[in-house]
Amino acid sequence: MIFQNTYLECMKCGYRTDLLKERNFSCPKCGNLYDVIHNIPRLPIQEWQDLFDSRKYSPRWNSGVWRFKEWIMPELPDKDIVSLGEGIVPIVPAGPHLKEWIGKDIDVWLILEGKSLTGSFKDFGMTVLVSVAKNVGVKAVICASTGDTSSSVAAYCSVAGIPCAVLMPKGKITPEQLLLTELYDAKIILLPGNFDECMDVVQKFNIYLANSKNPCRIEGHQATVFLTTQFFGWELPAWYVAPIGNGSDCSSLGKGLRLMKKLGFKAKSRILGCQSQAANPLYLSWRRAGARKATIESWETTYRAIEVGETIATAARIGNPVSHKKVIREVITSKGSMVEVSEEKIREGVLVCAKDGHFVCPQSGMAVAGTRYAAQIGLIEPGERVVIVCTADGIKFTKPFMDIKGDVIEAPDCRTETVAEILRIK
Amino acid sequence: MIFQNTYLECMKCGYRTDLLKERNFSCPKCGNLYDVIHNIPRLPIQEWQDLFDSRKYSPRWNSGVWRFKEWIMPELPDKDIVSLGEGIVPIVPAGPHLKEWIGKDIDVWLILEGKSLTGSFKDFGMTVLVSVAKNVGVKAVICASTGDTSSSVAAYCSVAGIPCAVLMPKGKITPEQLLLTELYDAKIILLPGNFDECMDVVQKFNIYLANSKNPCRIEGHQATVFLTTQFFGWELPAWYVAPIGNGSDCSSLGKGLRLMKKLGFKAKSRILGCQSQAANPLYLSWRRAGARKATIESWETTYRAIEVGETIATAARIGNPVSHKKVIREVITSKGSMVEVSEEKIREGVLVCAKDGHFVCPQSGMAVAGTRYAAQIGLIEPGERVVIVCTADGIKFTKPFMDIKGDVIEAPDCRTETVAEILRIK
Repeated sequence: MIFQNTYLECMKCGYRTDLLKERNFSCPKCGNLYDVIHNIPRLPIQEWQDLFDSRKYSPRWNSGVWRFKEWIMPELPDKDIVSLGEGIVPIVPAGPHLKEWIGKDIDVWLILEGKSLTGSFKDFGMTVLVSVAKNVGVKAVICASTGDTSSSVAAYCSVAGIPCAVLMPKGKITPEQLLLTELYDAKIILLPGNFDECMDVVQKFNIYLANSKNPCRIEGHQATVFLTTQFFGWELPAWYVAPIGNGSDCSSLGKGLRLMKKLGFKAKSRILGCQSQAANPLYLSWRRAGARKATIESWETTYRAIEVGETIATAARIGNPVSHKKVIREVITSKGSMVEVSEEKIREGVLVCAKDGHFVCPQSGMAVAGTRYAAQIGLIEPGERVVIVCTADGIKFTKPFMDIKGDVIEAPDCRTETVAEILRIK
Repeated sequence: MIFQNTYLECMKCGYRTDLLKERNFSCPKCGNLYDVIHNIPRLPIQEWQDLFDSRKYSPRWNSGVWRFKEWIMPELPDKDIVSLGEGIVPIVPAGPHLKEWIGKDIDVWLILEGKSLTGSFKDFGMTVLVSVAKNVGVKAVICASTGDTSSSVAAYCSVAGIPCAVLMPKGKITPEQLLLTELYDAKIILLPGNFDECMDVVQKFNIYLANSKNPCRIEGHQATVFLTTQFFGWELPAWYVAPIGNGSDCSSLGKGLRLMKKLGFKAKSRILGCQSQAANPLYLSWRRAGARKATIESWETTYRAIEVGETIATAARIGNPVSHKKVIREVITSKGSMVEVSEEKIREGVLVCAKDGHFVCPQSGMAVAGTRYAAQIGLIEPGERVVIVCTADGIKFTKPFMDIKGDVIEAPDCRTETVAEILRIK
């Protein structure tokens, strides 16, 4: 049961501990976050490519995450893998409306992670976390959630047969998200507070934590980098753009990029982190730290948790992202950048993607709007390839759009002549 | 602009006409449905497999439908293809809950077509229909819809720049389905009637018809057979199980199977069609025709349209399926069968899939429940591989499940002690 070459290492003080014995995932020496460390052999890159290419589209490797098992959790026995078929998601070029809206002839692609099983990107990380939890033999799992994590953890725990409890901020979850979590059989506790307060409480118990502070989640989310790179014939894009809620996406994009670089790939992609103006602690502190002149040290020093405002991007309404130090490390290390976007542009971003047939969540709208802004100011340059991480399906976040007045006419009767008149056909 | 080796042929009298000149898709001689006929070369089957295998997971062939272009619409110029990345959907084994519920050790797989771009299987056919419409240069497209077709046609037309109008039965569409159609920019007319009345009206105009009576749709839906067969290493399952609304799924499963057989594959899969007790004209007439002794002739003779009752499977609430003659042909030709399922079992089917992390629509619930029934009565035999076509995402059909009482507790405050008490932690 003990992994020989996999362990936890504190991202700051280097303290090491056993991955399989942790429950709360805070360094006891300095309180910082852990990274999962593996010893991955340095094969010729062609060997890695051939290995992973041989697994595309087969019942045996039926997951866009576990296809890359040797890079994600190499020592986990196959019998413990809890997979729902996550990571089999479309990677699509920007349609005509989005291309025009972003402008500047950027080569934009969307990875639609909301098309994963429980409707969000969370499945990428949760399959790894719950598989490790099964290997460990935990009695229960707990997490705080704004709605996407709860659906995902509930689904995987239901299949693994592990009881799970989720704490969610009352009134801040969409009815669709609450329903999914209920259908997947979780114990749900609604707190009269915000996400950050839920997060505070779940860390007080000695129960296996399913938030992205548990770095097993981060390992799974690296698949976003591996999948897209494989898709483009093992060529990395110039940019990855991701929304920031708790920061797990930027954290794992960066970790995946560093791994590929270490293994010999030309992994020079830069990370663009996007926050809404209502919940922008990382953007504000990045500005205070000198923006593009920021260093890991200066940014960490200027970082402050904030009180969040109202936003339609409810899943990213987080004033103190758990993984903020990892986001800082990865944005700086990748020579990346930060942007903030307004409610108006988030909404526009969602609507313009919809005109191309891709109805994404408001958090994805943040990333789409951030890409547009970065293109407009020349940060992203013409011709560069950009992969936008679209984190959830818009269909889970319909409420902010229910006021849309479409072109809807109620016919008084079912006669052909009546419809002909409405359609102005003589 | 004129296809040399592709034409329409009446399924009954054999009348032939130009695919690119039709608008309403009824044979002028006898009023029956058309098939699209192609001349597909008889290559060695290994050549076909290698060709399609070489296209997996690449930006150039970024569609689970167009990957099989030579079998679907070989003469369409690539420039006219309107694709959103459809058909990149998970094919997953039954999870532990579903496996137990179906019982009898059946090897059940789900193809989750609801994970397509607009949330339903309709994208598989619509990409072909709108691509042909673009090639033809039609001025507009029209269809009747219970909500899934409307989202799909609106999305593809929005990208193609073709105006589109949809007629829907007022009050019978979920708010999510209406919203999607609005977001994708269609002209929507709500009629005070049911789907069948909408269907009657749309056929009265000389506007390009987007219902599955237009057999271009059927060509695209064949990809369900091609995708799953490729996934299983070019081995066909014993059964395909599909819900029947208008019947496009059974029609296209059968056409795809017949094509593969003609090309030399061992395509002996049988088709099981599933209807709800509230909308079961094909099941009733199949019974009257002698059930398993039914022939195409006897079944057609006993077929009658019916008045539909209430069902949570609103998308299949159709009393006179447009493609009923094609369903009859394909079920009989494949040595298949028919079942009907109760509202209770449809609901159970959805809930049991959800416990495995797959929240499917009530129509998929019909197919899941139908599979269970067929396994219980010994029609599907132990060890046989079954592919269930799950047609839409459950998240578009939440209303019937909003009464679910999950394990939800509202905490009076955000204190750790309060939550500990709820979790019964000392």
